[in-house]
Amino acid sequence: MTRHTLKERSRKAGLSPGTLVHIGEKKIDTVKAVMFDYDERSCSETVLTELAQCIVCRGKPSVTWVDIEGVHDIQAFEKIGGCFDLHPLVMEDILNTDQRPKLEDYGDYLYIVLRMLTSASETGEIASEQVSLILGENFVLSIQEGAKGDVFDSVRSRIRGGKGQIRRLGADYLAYALIDAVVDNYFIILEKIGERIEFLEESLIGNPGPDTLKLLHHLKREMIYLRKSVWPLREVVAAMQRRDSALIREGTGYYLRDVYDHTIQVIDTIETFRDMLSGMLDIYLSSVSNRMNSVMKVLTVIATIFMPLTWIAGIYGMNFKHMPELEWAWGYPAVWALTLAIAVGMMVYFKKKKWY
Amino acid sequence: MTRHTLKERSRKAGLSPGTLVHIGEKKIDTVKAVMFDYDERSCSETVLTELAQCIVCRGKPSVTWVDIEGVHDIQAFEKIGGCFDLHPLVMEDILNTDQRPKLEDYGDYLYIVLRMLTSASETGEIASEQVSLILGENFVLSIQEGAKGDVFDSVRSRIRGGKGQIRRLGADYLAYALIDAVVDNYFIILEKIGERIEFLEESLIGNPGPDTLKLLHHLKREMIYLRKSVWPLREVVAAMQRRDSALIREGTGYYLRDVYDHTIQVIDTIETFRDMLSGMLDIYLSSVSNRMNSVMKVLTVIATIFMPLTWIAGIYGMNFKHMPELEWAWGYPAVWALTLAIAVGMMVYFKKKKWY
Amino acid sequence: MTRHTLKERSRKAGLSPGTLVHIGEKKIDTVKAVMFDYDERSCSETVLTELAQCIVCRGKPSVTWVDIEGVHDIQAFEKIGGCFDLHPLVMEDILNTDQRPKLEDYGDYLYIVLRMLTSASETGEIASEQVSLILGENFVLSIQEGAKGDVFDSVRSRIRGGKGQIRRLGADYLAYALIDAVVDNYFIILEKIGERIEFLEESLIGNPGPDTLKLLHHLKREMIYLRKSVWPLREVVAAMQRRDSALIREGTGYYLRDVYDHTIQVIDTIETFRDMLSGMLDIYLSSVSNRMNSVMKVLTVIATIFMPLTWIAGIYGMNFKHMPELEWAWGYPAVWALTLAIAVGMMVYFKKKKWY
Amino acid sequence: MTRHTLKERSRKAGLSPGTLVHIGEKKIDTVKAVMFDYDERSCSETVLTELAQCIVCRGKPSVTWVDIEGVHDIQAFEKIGGCFDLHPLVMEDILNTDQRPKLEDYGDYLYIVLRMLTSASETGEIASEQVSLILGENFVLSIQEGAKGDVFDSVRSRIRGGKGQIRRLGADYLAYALIDAVVDNYFIILEKIGERIEFLEESLIGNPGPDTLKLLHHLKREMIYLRKSVWPLREVVAAMQRRDSALIREGTGYYLRDVYDHTIQVIDTIETFRDMLSGMLDIYLSSVSNRMNSVMKVLTVIATIFMPLTWIAGIYGMNFKHMPELEWAWGYPAVWALTLAIAVGMMVYFKKKKWY
Amino acid sequence: MTRHTLKERSRKAGLSPGTLVHIGEKKIDTVKAVMFDYDERSCSETVLTELAQCIVCRGKPSVTWVDIEGVHDIQAFEKIGGCFDLHPLVMEDILNTDQRPKLEDYGDYLYIVLRMLTSASETGEIASEQVSLILGENFVLSIQEGAKGDVFDSVRSRIRGGKGQIRRLGADYLAYALIDAVVDNYFIILEKIGERIEFLEESLIGNPGPDTLKLLHHLKREMIYLRKSVWPLREVVAAMQRRDSALIREGTGYYLRDVYDHTIQVIDTIETFRDMLSGMLDIYLSSVSNRMNSVMKVLTVIATIFMPLTWIAGIYGMNFKHMPELEWAWGYPAVWALTLAIAVGMMVYFKKKKWY
Repeated sequence: MTRHTLKERSRKAGLSPGTLVHIGEKKIDTVKAVMFDYDERSCSETVLTELAQCIVCRGKPSVTWVDIEGVHDIQAFEKIGGCFDLHPLVMEDILNTDQRPKLEDYGDYLYIVLRMLTSASETGEIASEQVSLILGENFVLSIQEGAKGDVFDSVRSRIRGGKGQIRRLGADYLAYALIDAVVDNYFIILEKIGERIEFLEESLIGNPGPDTLKLLHHLKREMIYLRKSVWPLREVVAAMQRRDSALIREGTGYYLRDVYDHTIQVIDTIETFRDMLSGMLDIYLSSVSNRMNSVMKVLTVIATIFMPLTWIAGIYGMNFKHMPELEWAWGYPAVWALTLAIAVGMMVYFKKKKWY
Repeated sequence: MTRHTLKERSRKAGLSPGTLVHIGEKKIDTVKAVMFDYDERSCSETVLTELAQCIVCRGKPSVTWVDIEGVHDIQAFEKIGGCFDLHPLVMEDILNTDQRPKLEDYGDYLYIVLRMLTSASETGEIASEQVSLILGENFVLSIQEGAKGDVFDSVRSRIRGGKGQIRRLGADYLAYALIDAVVDNYFIILEKIGERIEFLEESLIGNPGPDTLKLLHHLKREMIYLRKSVWPLREVVAAMQRRDSALIREGTGYYLRDVYDHTIQVIDTIETFRDMLSGMLDIYLSSVSNRMNSVMKVLTVIATIFMPLTWIAGIYGMNFKHMPELEWAWGYPAVWALTLAIAVGMMVYFKKKKWY
Repeated sequence: MTRHTLKERSRKAGLSPGTLVHIGEKKIDTVKAVMFDYDERSCSETVLTELAQCIVCRGKPSVTWVDIEGVHDIQAFEKIGGCFDLHPLVMEDILNTDQRPKLEDYGDYLYIVLRMLTSASETGEIASEQVSLILGENFVLSIQEGAKGDVFDSVRSRIRGGKGQIRRLGADYLAYALIDAVVDNYFIILEKIGERIEFLEESLIGNPGPDTLKLLHHLKREMIYLRKSVWPLREVVAAMQRRDSALIREGTGYYLRDVYDHTIQVIDTIETFRDMLSGMLDIYLSSVSNRMNSVMKVLTVIATIFMPLTWIAGIYGMNFKHMPELEWAWGYPAVWALTLAIAVGMMVYFKKKKWY
Repeated sequence: MTRHTLKERSRKAGLSPGTLVHIGEKKIDTVKAVMFDYDERSCSETVLTELAQCIVCRGKPSVTWVDIEGVHDIQAFEKIGGCFDLHPLVMEDILNTDQRPKLEDYGDYLYIVLRMLTSASETGEIASEQVSLILGENFVLSIQEGAKGDVFDSVRSRIRGGKGQIRRLGADYLAYALIDAVVDNYFIILEKIGERIEFLEESLIGNPGPDTLKLLHHLKREMIYLRKSVWPLREVVAAMQRRDSALIREGTGYYLRDVYDHTIQVIDTIETFRDMLSGMLDIYLSSVSNRMNSVMKVLTVIATIFMPLTWIAGIYGMNFKHMPELEWAWGYPAVWALTLAIAVGMMVYFKKKKWY
Repeated sequence: MTRHTLKERSRKAGLSPGTLVHIGEKKIDTVKAVMFDYDERSCSETVLTELAQCIVCRGKPSVTWVDIEGVHDIQAFEKIGGCFDLHPLVMEDILNTDQRPKLEDYGDYLYIVLRMLTSASETGEIASEQVSLILGENFVLSIQEGAKGDVFDSVRSRIRGGKGQIRRLGADYLAYALIDAVVDNYFIILEKIGERIEFLEESLIGNPGPDTLKLLHHLKREMIYLRKSVWPLREVVAAMQRRDSALIREGTGYYLRDVYDHTIQVIDTIETFRDMLSGMLDIYLSSVSNRMNSVMKVLTVIATIFMPLTWIAGIYGMNFKHMPELEWAWGYPAVWALTLAIAVGMMVYFKKKKWY
C-alpha cells in the first residue's frame, strides 16, 4: 500500500461497509466501457455510452466481455452492480484501488483482483494499476483504474480475429487469457529491472559512490513493492486451478497450471533479484572498507617516510652553540645520505608488506 | 507486553485462577456504560447508572449492545459476569489489559480480545487499549479500558440513524462492525507512521546524525509493538470467518472475509515498513562509512602535500656550515618552484584517483 | 543444556536405558516429601519420613499430591517407581535434570517435565530447576531438584484454605494449578529482565563502552536460555488442552487454554526482548562508528589547520642568503596575517561542512 | 531465469497460449534425433532423418526412446506433437528453455522438465540446458536444447550392451535412468565448485584482496543459480515416487527413492556451500578491519614517537636572544639523550600495549 | 558431504544403479565380522572368518546380531546381500559412505543409516563414520566403515552379561540399543565442543586476534557439519517411533521416544552453540572496532597536542629581521608558558571528552 492510498484509505475509516467511495488516484476523466460479445461463429464489439447497456448480455449463451476503464464514477458502478447482482463488498473493493491480489468466490461469480504493472519508459519507475475481474457463468467484467494503455490488446485481437481457441471456449478461458496477459507483462517489467540491476552492477565495479547506493536502495524497495503485488497472485491462480468453483471448466485447468507456472517463475526471478541486490550491498560495503584501507595506507606511508626526515632536518636546524656535526665539511651530504637511506628503507619495508 | 503491565502482571502471580484483579493503568475514574437496544424498526439508547441494569436485555429478540468504559471496578464486573453467565477466566481476562488479540469459544458466547490503537497527536507516540467483545445469541458486550475517545462513533451513528444494514442484521453483524471499526482505525495509525518514515527518509538523505538513528530505532520498536497487536488478529478473524460457532450467521461470512482482507493489508503494510526501516539502517551505516572515508581523504591529501613541503623547508633551515644551495642566488626561488611542483603534482595525482 | 549437565550427561553414555543415575547438581542434602490428601470436605498434610509411605493413597477417591524435593536418592526413587508403576524411562528422566519441557502419555498416567526459573536476587542471574509432574487418575507426583524455595506456596495455601475451586476439582486441576504457578513465575523473571534491558538501554545512550557490550551479550545469552526453557512448554500445554488423554476432564480445558495463553504471552515477550536486544547491538555499533568519525574529524581539523601553518613558518626559517621577505619590515606581521587568514578560512570551511 | 532468456521471454508476452516460439539460445544448427527401440531380447538404434518417423513406435510393446537435440525447428516439433498427441502447452514449454524443473501429469503421459548442468572446463563457469522428458505408456521422448555433449552416454551404453536391468524393465525405468544420469552429473559439478571454494579459502587466508571478494561474490551467485535449478527437482522426484500416475510401476519406486535421496544430498551440499561462503564473507570483512587496525597502529606509533621529537628540535631551533640552554656545552648531547629517552619510552609503552 | 567423498561420488556418476562400488576412505585392511546369537537363556559370540557363515541364523527364533567392520570388500558383500535378500540399492548405499541418516522400509527389513562421530583426542577434530543397520524379523546387521573403535561396547557387554532387558527383547530392541549408543556418544562429542567454545570465549575476552577468528570460523564449520549429521536422524527416529513397520514391536515405542528426546536435546544444544558462536563474531567485530577507536584517539591526542606546539616553535624559528618577540628577555619563558598552557588545556579537554 503506498503512502498515497494509505492516506485515502484512512479517510474512509468508519464508513458503513459497502459504502462506495473511490480510493486512489483518478487516472481518467470519463469512464469508458467496451463490450465484446462472441461465440465460435460471430463476434460483436460495442462501445458502451451507458454502463447499464451491458445488461443485454445476461441470459445469452454467447460469451460477453465488458471492459471498463475508470473507477471514479460511483453512480455508474451502482448500476452495473445492479445488473450483475454484485455484492456491495465487491463493489467497494473494485473502487478501492489498493487491494492485494485475491480471489473471492460469491457462488454465482468469482471476484478476482490483479495488479497490472507498468514501467515508465524514461525513468523505469514501476507503477501498478488494479484490475478487477468478475467471472460469471457466461460473462467476464474487467474493471481497470483507467491509466493510459493496458496489456489486453493481444486478447482483443485474438477475439476479433478468431485466432487460437478463445472463441471456441467459455468465459473461464477468457478470464484465464486476461490473467495470462497480466502475468506475461510481468516478464517485460522484470526484464527492465534486470537491465537496471546489470547497470548497477557495472557501476558498482567501475565507480561506486553514494549514487550507486541510492540506486541500490531504490531497486530494493521496488523489489519489495513488486513482491507484494505478485506473491498473493500465486494463491489466486492456485485456487482457480484447484477448480473449487463450477465456473472453471475442466479443460481450462491445464491453462491455469501454465499461468501458475509463470507466476512461480516471476516469483523465482524476483527472489533471485533480491538475493543479487543483497549481495551487492555487501560488495559495496566491502569496497568502501577497502578504499578506506588504501587511503589509510597512503597516509601512513607518507607520514612514516616524512616524519623522521623532518625530525632530522629539525635536529640540524637547532641553534646550539656546540653542535660538532654542523662544522663538518661532509655534514650536509651525510644528512642527505641518511635521508635517502631512510626513504629507500621504508619503501622496501612497505613493498615487502605489500602496501602498494 | 509493556514493562508497566509486566510489573503488574508479575504481582498477580500465585493468585487463584479467576481471581479478579485489575491489571493495567486506570484510565478513567468511574465506569461508564451505554446500552443500545435495537431491531429493524426501533432503537433505544440508555446510559446505565448501574451495570446490572443490562440484565433486562436477556431473552429479548432485539439486539442489545452494552458498551462499557473502564475496567477497574471489580464489584460491578462481578455483577455483569453473573448477568451474562461469564466464565471466571473471561472475567479475569477482561480485567487484565495486557492480552493479545484472541478468540475463545465458550459455547453460549464468543470472547474476543482486540487492541484499539491511538496515536498521540503531538508526539505520534502509539498507545493501545484493550477492547473485549462478548458476542452472545442476541447481545454484544464491549468493554474498553476507558481511555478518552474510541473508534466506535461511526457504528453508533449507523445504529441511531438506521443507515446501512446494521439494524436489519443480528448481533454477529454488530460484532463485525465493531471489529471493522478497530481495523479501519489501523489504517489511520499506519498513515501517521508512514508520514514519519517519509520524514526519516528525507532527513537520512539530507542531514543524518545520531538523532536520525534514534528516530529510526524508535520507529523500529513501534513496528515490533504494532506487529504484536495485529498479527494475532489475523487468526481471530480467520477463525470467525470459518464460522465454527453457530453464533456467526452465514451472511456475515462475506463481511468477515472483507475485514480479514483488511487485516492482511495492515500486516502487509507493517512488514513493508519493517523492510523499509531495515534498509534505512543499511543506508545510515553506509553513509557513516562514506563520510568517514571522505574525512580520511581530506586528511590524507593535506598530509601528503604538506609533509614533503615542510620537510624541504626544514632541510634549508639546517645550520650546516657548508650548504652550497644556501649561497645560490636562485636557491630560494628554486625551493618555491619545487614546492609548487610538488603541490600541483599531488593535486593531479589525487584528481586522477578521484579523491575529490 | 549447560556445560555442567553436558559433562555429566556424557558420563552416562553407554549405560543400559532405564539405569537410574542422578545427573545434575545435588541441590539438597536429604530428600524431603510432603503428601497432601484432600477432597471437598477434608484435607490432610503429612511430611513423609519414608517415600514409600505414599503408597497409602493408591485407590482412595480423594486427590493426593506428593511433593518431593531432591532427586539424588536413587533407592528411594526406585521404591516410588514401584508404588506408582512408573516406567523405567520415566524414572530415568526424573533423575536426569537436563530435560526440556515435554509431555509423555503412558496410558495410566501423564509424565510432564517443566522448568522452574529462579533469578538470583543480587546478580539477576537466571537459574532453572527441573520439575517433573506425574498426573494419574487421582494423584499428582511433583518432583523438584530441591533448590531452596519453590513457586507452589500459593497452591499449597489454596488447598489448605479451601480457597477457589481446587478442593472441588480433580487431580488434573491440581496439575493445571502447578503448571500455572510455574508459568506465572515466568512473568516475574521477565519483569526483572525487562528492568535490566531498560538499564542497558539507558547506559547505551548515556555512556556506552565495552562493559555495555558485555552486558548486552550476556542478556542475549540469557534470552537463548530462557527461550529453550519456554518454547517446548507451549506444545506441552497445547497437547494437554487437546485432551488426548482421558486423565484431563472437560472442565479443565478452559483453564488449560488460559495457561496456554499465558505461555504465548511469555514467548511473545521473550521474542520482543530478543528483537530489542538485536536493535541495541545495531545502535551500539553505529555509535562506535559515529564516535570514530568524530575523532577522525578532530584529527583532520587540527592537521588541516596546523600543517600549512607549520610549513609557512618552516619556509621563513630557511637560511637562504637571498630571501627578500625576511628583510621587509612588515614581513613578520604579514606571516601572522596569513596565518590568521588560513586558520579562519579553514574554520569557516569546516563549519560549512558541518564538521563540528 | 537469466537476463538473456528474460529478454526473449518478454518478447513472447501477448501471444496466444500454445503458440510455438523458441525462447533461448540456438545451440545447434540442425535438429538431431536418435531412436532406440528395445525389449529384453533385441535393441535397435536408428538416426531419424525426419522427426515424424518416430510415429512407428506407437502401439509396439517394446520400449522406445527418442532422443532429440535442438528445439528451434518449430515445424518439426509440430509433427512430433501430433504423433504423440502432446498438449499445445507441453509443446510450448519444450520450446521455452527457461522452465524450472517440474512434473505435469497429462493423463496419458507425464511431462518432466529437468535442468542439465555443464561446467566450462577452463573457466569453471556453470551453464545449464533444459531437458524435457515425455514419459508415455511404452515410450520416452527426451528433448535437449542441443548443446554439445550430454550426460546420457552411460544410459545408451547400458541399453546397447544390455547391462543392468534396463532392457528388462519398462519406460518408467528408462525415465528414471535419465533423471538419475542428470542428478549424478550434479555431483561432478559440485565437486568442481568445491575445488574452487577450497581455492578461495586458501587465498582468503594467504592473500585476500578485491579479487578474492569478486570470486566470492561470483561463487555466491552461482550457488543461487544452482539452487534454483535443483530445489524444484526435489518435488518432481518426490511426486514421481508417490506414484500418483499409473505410468510409474511399483518396482521403480525404490529406484526413485534412491534418486530422491541423491537430490537431497545435492541440496544439502549446496546449502553447506552457501553457509561456507557466508562465513567467508565474515572472515574477509574481519580481516579487512584487522589490517586497517594494524595500518593505523603503524601510523600512530610513528606519529607518537616523531611528533614530540620534532617539537623538541623545533624548540631549540627558535631564534630567541635569550635561550640559556643554547649556550650550555652539554645542551646538544642533552637533547639527544632526551630524544633517546622518549623514543625508548614510547617503544616500551607500545610493546606493553601489544601494538606490534 | 566432504570434498573427499564428493570427488569419489562424482567418479561413480553414470554407473548402472545397484553397481557396487566402494566410495569413501578404506579405513581397515580386512573385513571383520562378529556374530552374536542370543535369546533369554543363552548367548553365543562367533568371529566369522567368512561373511557367508551368517546364513545359519536365518530362520532361527533367537536374535542374531552380525557386526561387520570394513566395507571395501565388494565380493564379500555380494554374498551377504544374497543371504539376507538385500535390494541392490541397499547394497550400494552401504558401500557409499557419504549417506545422510535415513530410514528406508523394504517390507521384510528396515534399512537405517546413522553417522557415528568420533573426535580426535589431541586436536578435537570431529570425524564421522557411516553405520548401516539392517533390521529384519529376528536379526540385525550392523555395518561400520571400520575406523578403529566404536561405540557399541556397552551393548556387547550387556548382551554378554545379560544385563538389562536386552536378552529378553527382540531384534527391534537391539536396533534401538545400537541407535541409542550412537546418540549417547553425541553428548560426549558435544561436551568436547562445549569445552572448546568456552576456551574460545575466554580468549575473546582476554586476547582476541586473527587466531581467535580462525578458531571461531573452524568451530562454526564443525557445527554445520554436525548439524547435517544429526538433523536427519530426528526424522529417522520419529519414523521408527510411529511404528509404521510391523518390525517395531509396541513395547519398543517408549524406548524410541526416549532416544527421540535425546536427539532433540542434541539438536537443541547444537543450535544453542550456533547462536553462541554467532554472538561471538559480533563481539569480535565490536572489539576490533573498539580497539581501532582507541588507537585513533591516541593518535589524535598526540597530534592535537604537538602540532600547535611545533607550529609555535616554528614561528620563532623564522629568520625575519624584525621580530620584536625575539628580543624580549622573557620571550623564551613565555613560549614555554604558552606551550604548557596548550598542553594542559588539551589534556583537560580530552579528559572531559572521556578520551582516555
